Amino acid sequence: MIKAGIIGGTGYTGIELIRLLVMHPEVDLSVVTSRRYKGKKVSDLYPHLFPFIELEYEDVDTKEIAERSDVVFVAVPHGTAMDYVPGLMAQGVTVIDLSADYRLKKAEYERVYKREHKDKEEREAVYGLTELHPEVAEADLVANPGCYPTGAILAAAPLVNARLVSQIVFDSKSGISGAGAEPSETSHFPNIAENIIPYKITEHRHVAEMRNELGVKVSFTPHVIPSIRGILTTAHVFLAEAAKPQEELEAIYKRFYAGKRFIRLREGTPSLSSVRGTNFCDIGISVEANSDRVVVVSAIDNLVKGGSGQAIQNMNMMFGLKEEEGLWFPGLVP
Amino acid sequence: MIKAGIIGGTGYTGIELIRLLVMHPEVDLSVVTSRRYKGKKVSDLYPHLFPFIELEYEDVDTKEIAERSDVVFVAVPHGTAMDYVPGLMAQGVTVIDLSADYRLKKAEYERVYKREHKDKEEREAVYGLTELHPEVAEADLVANPGCYPTGAILAAAPLVNARLVSQIVFDSKSGISGAGAEPSETSHFPNIAENIIPYKITEHRHVAEMRNELGVKVSFTPHVIPSIRGILTTAHVFLAEAAKPQEELEAIYKRFYAGKRFIRLREGTPSLSSVRGTNFCDIGISVEANSDRVVVVSAIDNLVKGGSGQAIQNMNMMFGLKEEEGLWFPGLVP
Amino acid sequence: MIKAGIIGGTGYTGIELIRLLVMHPEVDLSVVTSRRYKGKKVSDLYPHLFPFIELEYEDVDTKEIAERSDVVFVAVPHGTAMDYVPGLMAQGVTVIDLSADYRLKKAEYERVYKREHKDKEEREAVYGLTELHPEVAEADLVANPGCYPTGAILAAAPLVNARLVSQIVFDSKSGISGAGAEPSETSHFPNIAENIIPYKITEHRHVAEMRNELGVKVSFTPHVIPSIRGILTTAHVFLAEAAKPQEELEAIYKRFYAGKRFIRLREGTPSLSSVRGTNFCDIGISVEANSDRVVVVSAIDNLVKGGSGQAIQNMNMMFGLKEEEGLWFPGLVP
Amino acid sequence: MIKAGIIGGTGYTGIELIRLLVMHPEVDLSVVTSRRYKGKKVSDLYPHLFPFIELEYEDVDTKEIAERSDVVFVAVPHGTAMDYVPGLMAQGVTVIDLSADYRLKKAEYERVYKREHKDKEEREAVYGLTELHPEVAEADLVANPGCYPTGAILAAAPLVNARLVSQIVFDSKSGISGAGAEPSETSHFPNIAENIIPYKITEHRHVAEMRNELGVKVSFTPHVIPSIRGILTTAHVFLAEAAKPQEELEAIYKRFYAGKRFIRLREGTPSLSSVRGTNFCDIGISVEANSDRVVVVSAIDNLVKGGSGQAIQNMNMMFGLKEEEGLWFPGLVP
Repeated sequence: MIKAGIIGGTGYTGIELIRLLVMHPEVDLSVVTSRRYKGKKVSDLYPHLFPFIELEYEDVDTKEIAERSDVVFVAVPHGTAMDYVPGLMAQGVTVIDLSADYRLKKAEYERVYKREHKDKEEREAVYGLTELHPEVAEADLVANPGCYPTGAILAAAPLVNARLVSQIVFDSKSGISGAGAEPSETSHFPNIAENIIPYKITEHRHVAEMRNELGVKVSFTPHVIPSIRGILTTAHVFLAEAAKPQEELEAIYKRFYAGKRFIRLREGTPSLSSVRGTNFCDIGISVEANSDRVVVVSAIDNLVKGGSGQAIQNMNMMFGLKEEEGLWFPGLVP
Repeated sequence: MIKAGIIGGTGYTGIELIRLLVMHPEVDLSVVTSRRYKGKKVSDLYPHLFPFIELEYEDVDTKEIAERSDVVFVAVPHGTAMDYVPGLMAQGVTVIDLSADYRLKKAEYERVYKREHKDKEEREAVYGLTELHPEVAEADLVANPGCYPTGAILAAAPLVNARLVSQIVFDSKSGISGAGAEPSETSHFPNIAENIIPYKITEHRHVAEMRNELGVKVSFTPHVIPSIRGILTTAHVFLAEAAKPQEELEAIYKRFYAGKRFIRLREGTPSLSSVRGTNFCDIGISVEANSDRVVVVSAIDNLVKGGSGQAIQNMNMMFGLKEEEGLWFPGLVP
Repeated sequence: MIKAGIIGGTGYTGIELIRLLVMHPEVDLSVVTSRRYKGKKVSDLYPHLFPFIELEYEDVDTKEIAERSDVVFVAVPHGTAMDYVPGLMAQGVTVIDLSADYRLKKAEYERVYKREHKDKEEREAVYGLTELHPEVAEADLVANPGCYPTGAILAAAPLVNARLVSQIVFDSKSGISGAGAEPSETSHFPNIAENIIPYKITEHRHVAEMRNELGVKVSFTPHVIPSIRGILTTAHVFLAEAAKPQEELEAIYKRFYAGKRFIRLREGTPSLSSVRGTNFCDIGISVEANSDRVVVVSAIDNLVKGGSGQAIQNMNMMFGLKEEEGLWFPGLVP
Repeated sequence: MIKAGIIGGTGYTGIELIRLLVMHPEVDLSVVTSRRYKGKKVSDLYPHLFPFIELEYEDVDTKEIAERSDVVFVAVPHGTAMDYVPGLMAQGVTVIDLSADYRLKKAEYERVYKREHKDKEEREAVYGLTELHPEVAEADLVANPGCYPTGAILAAAPLVNARLVSQIVFDSKSGISGAGAEPSETSHFPNIAENIIPYKITEHRHVAEMRNELGVKVSFTPHVIPSIRGILTTAHVFLAEAAKPQEELEAIYKRFYAGKRFIRLREGTPSLSSVRGTNFCDIGISVEANSDRVVVVSAIDNLVKGGSGQAIQNMNMMFGLKEEEGLWFPGLVP
């Protein structure tokens, strides 16, 4: 059994890791940390996890976490993860960082996140978009992608890879759980119910990951919607030349994602319901007649494929397990 | 024109007063207070009110508020209203208190709210459930009822008045705006969406108002539901003797509420939609066959009939206006 | 492996059976019927089930279904199930009927459902509320309980069993999926969003099951709420004598449900979230001070413990498996 | 008083006209038609309108409607409006058509809507986007704009007018009431709650109105969201040259919309809440740094500014009333 530790076990990313890992046949949770809730049983704070986890939250140092774990999931906010990762790496433990801290080169990180990167080294983290980066299997440190980039990049990668793309506008709509477990103005029910709120309209930092991975002209605007989970990305893709027939583009997607078990190409429109609670990314393509536009829609669960599930998918690859181990179940419909 | 001041203009009760009063043909808003937002334009904090109100929030003392107003709405939390009311009364201004501070006798208030009542006097506030207390027309001080008691008492009063009732179980369901404008665990979208949360299950303080007004055995349990506005009250009324026929009970309601313009007796089931944004209380009666139970369902908008609208209805009565002035419009359906 | 057939595989009960059974380690789905969608792949109609089920909907007769199955789940509306059950029983196959057709004695069924019972025999169906009826383990035919009775009876049974109860008012709130997969006025988003709708206020037929199982005076009113899943039942229990202390009642529940893995007694308030997607029934007790009232709140997922999950729990018992086989996972929170 | 008739008074457009017109100080509703509900009181079908309308639905011919009305609102589906308009015009009554039938030239209509236009004449309907077409004041026939074009065109018109635009991607999100009052798969609560559904992804017919009015390269994709009302349009505007400073663009909008009372330029992000139930269009502009992209977000209530409210605004203009008569009230927040 793989001993797995979680640094930061009270946010949505942390409890989603727990929800999935307690059911994983090859994993034992060894330690879950929280300064604030030290000594409290995890299932007292989150009763849906009873009786699946016996652990209490602990406040222990990096060294002890590493000693007690084969793999450590770092589920703290960006800017904080880099406090833990160097120490964990020094102990030789495998690390999957769910924050933004290792997704970009240090210089780019500092430019985009407007803060100093505290890690002394430029670490060779693999960007853990599993379907595009099989080299995660060899990695010691995986930078788990942002939720928006996961949906956006998976939607556009096959067309970009085929060198067909001129520019892309990603218009993304996220469930409010993406804003975290702490109550805020935005997550206040009377503010978000019966509403949809665009934010960081021209300046969301996730665009840096999209540009890195795709290498074409990318625009991005995110919105939160009155749903708990899910990200639907509407990718308005403008082609370099006249549009291709629908079938040709579908064939490109089928080839590109052949054998990728978590990518489901849809004839109809992808829906957040179908991926609810799962690690799937559903994708549908619509070619506009007499136009250079193709619209690719992707649907993911922001907390699973867009976060904790993809982290576990990466762990599976890193430990030589089947990619889908512990992640292979249908979504919650209705 | 009646000059109206509002003490506490940033909570939901306050902004709902403003929404309604800016449209009231006989009222000019004279002053709206807030310590926290002093100097900020009301319509900057709440842009839906632009350009209907020019005022800035002010932080002025009771004396000045009274001087600038014919009527003052006190829209601060219970325990705080009593800091303002004595001073306002001393200035001879008409006062409508939307808090709980003057709804109960002082001794009872202290027992129920577990705090000392700071007002030196036992004031003769009229309980402003307008349909049941026409004497509000003569009052200087009206204690505007709680949102739950408004829906509950209006549902049951005709049967109680007819001396038919043995006991009542009020099971109430409120939109989350009843929990206020401040984000909280309960109002956090991922917590209340796809959920319904009972709270203060056997101990909500509003039951004291219900018992005062009805004088029969009353049980009460409130819940919050994933809706912004509205209170639906399911009153399980147990009769002292065998049930009466449906028509007889309906006749009792018709007589009791004859001429009450904001009470609408429904043949079908009342719905929160039909009262959304309005001062109506819709009521429907269902007699259970071969049983001593009658179920009366009432629907109100918690912020209008259950709060600010009823306060304005009381103001209308106190100033000799038509009861429905400024409050006569249909609900927002769909 | 147990070969399981499903009669009626397109409603919410049917697809929830499929969602759960495709993950069940001891079950192979052998046949899923639908007249309307004969020949269509199940995962084409319900894409969240791709690629977990390869089957197409079939329109085959009772005899063939029985031949291809060790157990048959009958997931058609009440009034229709009785067309299938006699034939299935005649073939010696184990049957779990999710409709109302075998929950009551024939005479009572005909009175309550106002239709003739077409089965020639008075069959000895066991009422499949697993925690209260361990004799399901010996049954050939299980009548799976209604969704409301499941939540209501589990909430009240320990107090009734202790002979403490005078009468009970069950006020239940259900997610709209309880109204089925077919669009209707009630399930139309603009009608149910921002609303809560009581229905069959004094006459819902599920009350017959509650009275049968509890044997005390029971009143029942159901509501639908703007949530997809879940039933929260607020049981206002009136005791025969003065109230007992909270601890004493909790001890009664602990004893009564000792070893019942799907019953979780909660210190706080049960929540629909914690049981979302699961077979758990969470229960919380609140004793009212100086009163004969105890409020017991239960939360279930109407489609799992209130339907398909409980049916599988019954199947597990009937086939000598662990009660929780295929049903042991935490809820989807947030 | 203006006598107003409504052809088609049972859909959302029709009842929203009634909700607004019963409060309009210069209008008397003279006739409301429905074949299906002939003889039924409007307020029996839609109880939120009680007691504001006494009328029953009638099934009378065009001639009689025209005789009893000064203005007729045609609120039937496209393809049907053209059955009524010629007859109404022949009677000399003023007509406001809320369908698509007169928004495009006949030839273009037939191409876009793939059906024959039954009107013998090519009528000179004015496109009733009031802020852009003051000539509605002189019109006999106004073609009220589609809901999506209203939000989209108002967002982009100032930049287009300033000849700054290269191309625009409109990504629109509509409340589900836009799909109408009839229950459907899409409006079924379990399908749209916790979801967002793109539809007619590259082929929605409203794009023709946008192209007509704007005359630049336009792409359009609509979505429905789990809200009752509202359309939020995210206009990704690509400029012909390098971006202008934020202040310069804001100045363009201020000039363009000077004196337009229903356009509110926002410093923050527009929100569906602020326009809920109102005729306002709120607009916010975000210039992307170092980019040719400007994102303009507009928010309207699809049933008011996007439909019935704008129709009344047009009526006001056509009858020489103040533009905002009967439409001047703040939105329902929270």
